[in-house]
Amino acid sequence: MRLLWLAAALLAFSLIFAGTPQAQPSGPDAAAIKKVLETQQDAWNRGDVNAFLEGYWRSPELTFSGSNGIARGFDAVRARYQKNYPDRAAMGTLDFSALEIRLLGHDAALVLGHWHLTRAQGDIGGVFSLVFQRFPNEGWRIIHDHTSTVPLT
Amino acid sequence: MRLLWLAAALLAFSLIFAGTPQAQPSGPDAAAIKKVLETQQDAWNRGDVNAFLEGYWRSPELTFSGSNGIARGFDAVRARYQKNYPDRAAMGTLDFSALEIRLLGHDAALVLGHWHLTRAQGDIGGVFSLVFQRFPNEGWRIIHDHTSTVPLT
Repeated sequence: MRLLWLAAALLAFSLIFAGTPQAQPSGPDAAAIKKVLETQQDAWNRGDVNAFLEGYWRSPELTFSGSNGIARGFDAVRARYQKNYPDRAAMGTLDFSALEIRLLGHDAALVLGHWHLTRAQGDIGGVFSLVFQRFPNEGWRIIHDHTSTVPLT
Repeated sequence: MRLLWLAAALLAFSLIFAGTPQAQPSGPDAAAIKKVLETQQDAWNRGDVNAFLEGYWRSPELTFSGSNGIARGFDAVRARYQKNYPDRAAMGTLDFSALEIRLLGHDAALVLGHWHLTRAQGDIGGVFSLVFQRFPNEGWRIIHDHTSTVPLT
């Protein structure tokens, strides 16, 4: 009988929290999303921008927001990276940190995090908000990126 | 028989596009989300910051990212608005424009848009990315805001 009450309490608890986003999930979806970002970081750090860009949805509907407004489409996002990071020195060494993954339903997720570029010409860094979507063939890809530079203290 | 082929083609089309985000949806969810933003804009323009803040999830897990990093929790977001917009003159007149709503599953949505403040002390504006979540009682609320200032041209 006590077990029944426990089960009922657990069910009620689950229902109450079912509607709220799940912070720091540890399941296979979070692992797959982290893997995309690790792959991006590794690609960047060997100077391979095209491999880095694989983390993004290859679509005209991909969007990238920041202090230059909204870039639209995979080609525009690639052009933005090529313009801002023309060579290995400008790219520096990328470090993503403090990742927070919130699953939004079955096929979408919000990821917050910090980025830092260690460079001889001066470090830069900031914060990003990524919206990931799960695609049937490609798996998890970034469909929207909003990145800000934050003055280093 | 032709109708059957048409139905099959429509079904295939629907299945192919089911996994992609729906831009500019026109259903009741998009209308409810637009309503939250219109209510925010109206509240701002009568100088009522507390009513403006009703659009946000009243939770310690609410996040707000920008060029100052990540603010955490409803109270921190309120404090940020109170600090940046201490009086009616600083608030100016708010205009949200070019809203793009993408539903992410049943209970979440990504909203991109532009913001502009018309002020005697100088206009400012930029772009925002909002993640909305649908809550059982409150309805649609912003659970994450990433806002950037974009230099006015």
